[in-house]
Amino acid sequence: MLNIMGEAAVKAKYIIEQLSTEEKNKILSFVADKLIEDTESILAANEKDMEAGRKKGMSQGLLDRLLLTRERIQSMADGIRQVVSLSDPIGEVMESWQQPNGMKLEKRRVPLGVIGIIYEARPNVTADAFALAFKTGNVVILKGGSDALFSNAAITASIRGSLEQCMISPDAIQLIEDTDRKVTEEFMRLNQYIDVLIPRGGAGLISMVVNNSTIPVIETGTGNCHIYVDKEADLSMAASIVVNAKTQRIGVCNACESLLVHEDIKEAFLPYLKEELDKVHSVELRGDDKVINLIPQAVPATEEDYYKEYLDYILSVKIVKDTEEAVNHINQYHTKHSDAVVTENKDTAEYFLNRVDSACCYWNVSTRFTDGFEFGFGAEIGISTQKLHARGPMGLKELTTYKYIIMGNGQIR
Amino acid sequence: MLNIMGEAAVKAKYIIEQLSTEEKNKILSFVADKLIEDTESILAANEKDMEAGRKKGMSQGLLDRLLLTRERIQSMADGIRQVVSLSDPIGEVMESWQQPNGMKLEKRRVPLGVIGIIYEARPNVTADAFALAFKTGNVVILKGGSDALFSNAAITASIRGSLEQCMISPDAIQLIEDTDRKVTEEFMRLNQYIDVLIPRGGAGLISMVVNNSTIPVIETGTGNCHIYVDKEADLSMAASIVVNAKTQRIGVCNACESLLVHEDIKEAFLPYLKEELDKVHSVELRGDDKVINLIPQAVPATEEDYYKEYLDYILSVKIVKDTEEAVNHINQYHTKHSDAVVTENKDTAEYFLNRVDSACCYWNVSTRFTDGFEFGFGAEIGISTQKLHARGPMGLKELTTYKYIIMGNGQIR
Repeated sequence: MLNIMGEAAVKAKYIIEQLSTEEKNKILSFVADKLIEDTESILAANEKDMEAGRKKGMSQGLLDRLLLTRERIQSMADGIRQVVSLSDPIGEVMESWQQPNGMKLEKRRVPLGVIGIIYEARPNVTADAFALAFKTGNVVILKGGSDALFSNAAITASIRGSLEQCMISPDAIQLIEDTDRKVTEEFMRLNQYIDVLIPRGGAGLISMVVNNSTIPVIETGTGNCHIYVDKEADLSMAASIVVNAKTQRIGVCNACESLLVHEDIKEAFLPYLKEELDKVHSVELRGDDKVINLIPQAVPATEEDYYKEYLDYILSVKIVKDTEEAVNHINQYHTKHSDAVVTENKDTAEYFLNRVDSACCYWNVSTRFTDGFEFGFGAEIGISTQKLHARGPMGLKELTTYKYIIMGNGQIR
Repeated sequence: MLNIMGEAAVKAKYIIEQLSTEEKNKILSFVADKLIEDTESILAANEKDMEAGRKKGMSQGLLDRLLLTRERIQSMADGIRQVVSLSDPIGEVMESWQQPNGMKLEKRRVPLGVIGIIYEARPNVTADAFALAFKTGNVVILKGGSDALFSNAAITASIRGSLEQCMISPDAIQLIEDTDRKVTEEFMRLNQYIDVLIPRGGAGLISMVVNNSTIPVIETGTGNCHIYVDKEADLSMAASIVVNAKTQRIGVCNACESLLVHEDIKEAFLPYLKEELDKVHSVELRGDDKVINLIPQAVPATEEDYYKEYLDYILSVKIVKDTEEAVNHINQYHTKHSDAVVTENKDTAEYFLNRVDSACCYWNVSTRFTDGFEFGFGAEIGISTQKLHARGPMGLKELTTYKYIIMGNGQIR
């Protein structure tokens, strides 16, 4: 079955990649309108998933992720319309030059081709991933979480219906509906048809894909983000940044999970930070003896704590003797996602920014800004924590590759 | 053992990535001089490999690949000196902008980090890969073919000696000397330490790495390259390009393996091409009945033939009815490496260049130019046939990634 889907995707790819920006935009607008029209059938399908979820005893948080409402379908459509308004990177001549033998070379931006996406319970990813991929001339094969199967199928059916009405191959989006684990394994080995695989979800899903896929993967997501408060920090700014990065939204990969504090300011900073945190939300601090001496409510941190992405109102804390120790600690424990330094000293900042091996290195800014929209990309397909191809927030450009066009008049070697 | 090497590599990486261009160049020049100085010991080690190879009954071709001479060591050193003369891409600010909230963003080019390289019997890859990686601030862990173990170890020892004399961590280059298959398997799963794995060798090695590595891989190499001779081709140019791409060097990935000829010119072109080929070297043509009717010496081609990278004086030939059929055939059978069209018609050329899904698409130029040096990159670490990260010839830039530096004055969300 997957081979048939793979072949259909490749066939569709050769059509979609040739569409003009105008054609792609028209189709995407049509898809957005049709999703609104199909609201009732999508809500009915979602209710089936919700009912199964409730029966299964799914947590309130997961049920909320799964839930679609009229407003959420509206915002799905709005998301697609926003993608329409973004500029299309395809066709850009990235570089061009001539060699001494007279041949002219052009490095031209082209679609990746067929993108596989494996995701969890959020049905909005279905429309979202399709729109970003389609805008960049790519086709998608989706494997969503089984809990959202009816919802994903209804959204996919709506989009495929739109494509057909636009006289375009509906196979620009295909959903794998078979929930057998073996099918997912087979999917991750479809190198013949799929150019890139992008997992979107929790750490478990991502490591499963990294460990089993033979298709090139863009690893996304896990963020054990650090903030280092230097001895020369503006302490009020530092507290405001830590409070924001820890509490503004706890379940996201760019939230702060670990705090490093320079020894010289620990007395001045930690009790003050605790006060500021308490004003917003109670946060459990986990640290060593030095931390507990200053914050009696803190609990002892284990080695494991420093590796953890809590996604909760918990923060690991460590006192360091200098910026070098802070940098070494971060490079040991982080996930190469986002790390920040708070300092008024430019040299200290540069030392930190140069040496911390993360996709996003911040100076006097909250780590919460690691996001395609906050970076001004106008879209986001995920946040890459690997070094190949794309790093940090991935927008439309990161869904493209390039080809070389070489033109001459009979050059031989 | 591999964990210890991995840790050593990561430790070295944080030092090497901070070196200035000047420091890296000085060290590389020193390494080149030292290789010449160590000629005797490298030749002695190579003789051990050669003797084992002869005893084993290695083919003349493989023995020649393995052989080191005074001249070859000299050219290894010259290769390193050439890398010294190339400009260093590290530190380049690729983009910079400011967001409405006042934070400034910079996309800065940085090293990949730790690069793993798995290669076969050519000992010169050892020095070559080190030089390219080091120039771009990367460290390498090498796993060479067991047939070249003594040679690779001697070259590595020479380079490590140079690094020590320059007071730089010798772990910028490490060679895995254990030839156990299990060690290679473990190597391909060292995600904790290695950022990218690059296989260099034949199709078997590459697919072994793609299928077993959990580390991001850059797939290189296999080239089933096509030339399509259109009905509006300059036939003399077409013959010259085919002869060059097929016979100038047969064992390389950018050699032509398959020829497509427009029906309307088959009588005018094929017998003439045969004549031109015969002047240079006898080439076995494999084709369908139409081809055999025109070239009595041709033999029947099987479906398998059209998928084959011969690396030999063999060429598969097919008659097509138009450019569309040519493009579809190529997209079905090629390896996404290099494919060429020969035509005087600009529209035909553009149709071909836009639709053929290869790293390098040629118009009136031999496919043999797919090469980092021929493209003017001044170096080449391999030719990527995947779409993630890099496509086509990879030079120094392709051994880099980027990080975002975000600077502000207390921005929070």
